Amino acid sequence: MTPTSLELVTEELDLVEQEMLEPDPGRCEPVDGAIAHLVRSGGKRVRPRVTLLVCRLLGTDCQRVIFLAAAVETLHTATLVHDDIIDGALVRRGVPTLNASWSPGATILTGDYLFARAADLAARTGDVSVMQLFAQTLMTICNGELHQLLADRRPPIDRSEYLRRVYAKTGALFVLAAKASGVLAAAGDEVLGHLHTFGRELGIAFQIVDDLLDFVGSESQVGKPLGSDLAQGLVTLPVICFLEQYPNDDRILSALYGASKAEHVAMALQAIRNSEAVKQTRDEALRHVMRAREAMLNLPDNRFRQALLDLADYSVQRQL
Amino acid sequence: MTPTSLELVTEELDLVEQEMLEPDPGRCEPVDGAIAHLVRSGGKRVRPRVTLLVCRLLGTDCQRVIFLAAAVETLHTATLVHDDIIDGALVRRGVPTLNASWSPGATILTGDYLFARAADLAARTGDVSVMQLFAQTLMTICNGELHQLLADRRPPIDRSEYLRRVYAKTGALFVLAAKASGVLAAAGDEVLGHLHTFGRELGIAFQIVDDLLDFVGSESQVGKPLGSDLAQGLVTLPVICFLEQYPNDDRILSALYGASKAEHVAMALQAIRNSEAVKQTRDEALRHVMRAREAMLNLPDNRFRQALLDLADYSVQRQL
Repeated sequence: MTPTSLELVTEELDLVEQEMLEPDPGRCEPVDGAIAHLVRSGGKRVRPRVTLLVCRLLGTDCQRVIFLAAAVETLHTATLVHDDIIDGALVRRGVPTLNASWSPGATILTGDYLFARAADLAARTGDVSVMQLFAQTLMTICNGELHQLLADRRPPIDRSEYLRRVYAKTGALFVLAAKASGVLAAAGDEVLGHLHTFGRELGIAFQIVDDLLDFVGSESQVGKPLGSDLAQGLVTLPVICFLEQYPNDDRILSALYGASKAEHVAMALQAIRNSEAVKQTRDEALRHVMRAREAMLNLPDNRFRQALLDLADYSVQRQL
Repeated sequence: MTPTSLELVTEELDLVEQEMLEPDPGRCEPVDGAIAHLVRSGGKRVRPRVTLLVCRLLGTDCQRVIFLAAAVETLHTATLVHDDIIDGALVRRGVPTLNASWSPGATILTGDYLFARAADLAARTGDVSVMQLFAQTLMTICNGELHQLLADRRPPIDRSEYLRRVYAKTGALFVLAAKASGVLAAAGDEVLGHLHTFGRELGIAFQIVDDLLDFVGSESQVGKPLGSDLAQGLVTLPVICFLEQYPNDDRILSALYGASKAEHVAMALQAIRNSEAVKQTRDEALRHVMRAREAMLNLPDNRFRQALLDLADYSVQRQL
């Protein structure tokens, strides 16, 4: 993101963080600490940035959008807490996860509490449509995760199935971030349609790049061990592209499902890194960014729109 | 509950169950089955009964209260799914829990999905105040569970601490069931205050009786092994009453924290069953039922009010 784009909503992002850190007298002290830790290690705030920029782009600037942005980011945090316990991940963004030091029970309940906080923040927008979008987004996310967990995960998984999964995992929350902000700004159906497309395509691109970084990033950039998806038996786009070209290469299946996984994961990682799959995956991400840009170009031309276009470009350029 | 009271909202309860079972095309098939199983083994529907009866008592009868009652019961179901995985409970209401056969990940996500469904149902009431109550109730429940999990659980735990915990665990959801129904019926602050008291006191009484049944019920009535709370190191009111009278009896501490627990739990169970603690616990539950009744007697006198009074009486009479 360019410095100008980054600076556009700095003050509002501070307010969002304040909302996320707002004390709750009903909470016990260890949970206060855990939530402060989670919020402060919160990454680049891409989702609340989208929410704040969309609202400004549409010419409104209200307290309610702060609640919405905080709800979106808190919902994101809640899903990460449960993802990490489900995956047994011990590190995220370079820092230990909650489940690395807390019991499963306390971790599950802290995630639940964050879902409740997110719902409370969404309710504070005072907008029933926003609440409905919020609840349906969480349903989509959970359904996507459950599909991924319960479905047969062996290849062949085709691109369309992968894209459906990636939409549920990340696209839906970006739709909430963009579209609910339009709802608060009282935008009409056409604008909401463009915001929906922008959120969906940006979210999909974002997740594809995340999945690619698991192969071509560095551990310090990614904040967790490379090859984590492969090690968990999770088929992502780089694997799909690789298998499209080399359907009989058994290094991938060994890495996904074989014994002595660490060694096989390292071999598969190397094979994919050296293949066309990297460029093909990046091209797919770029296609989605282009669609996000196209949708955004239907909206009023101002510096907030430019910041959102920059943010879309950043989503594929980061760390590649 | 008397037959008349039971029959008053039978049709509405069917509609509530239909809402809870409403298909979601985004859900994968195993989750459909799990949710149908959870909904159909759903017990006596005390909470949605309260919601439906309060609305009728206040002279309104709208579709929106069906959504609210379904939201309340779905939220209850979601918390049970996570409770059971946290406690490692394999049986509830005499049937296997979800975590008895599913992986922890799939169980956590199914609970999360049910939270989202509950939020969606609450949003369908179209009432922002209901949404806020809903979100704050879930925060209270999670905070209560986290206190219970993270706080020092060794005795002495006094009655006031126990009652705070029981309010968070069960009272808060009964408040939502009663008060949010009043909100939908456009009740004034005074009526909402009485509904709040009714829900809180009824919920507390209900949980005290649940905790007592863990000592004096039969396994077929309780639907899970007796002494489960003791075995988990959880101090409930019968234990508190017993220790008030016999502070130096080490059978309780051995059951809560000692080795070879099964034997010690059986001994402690027997000691408490034979003590005054049973009557003292029941008296505490009765005091809360009386307060619930008193609050209810401020509301209009009709057959729906009578059904709610019956329901309060039932909450202490059941299986004792």
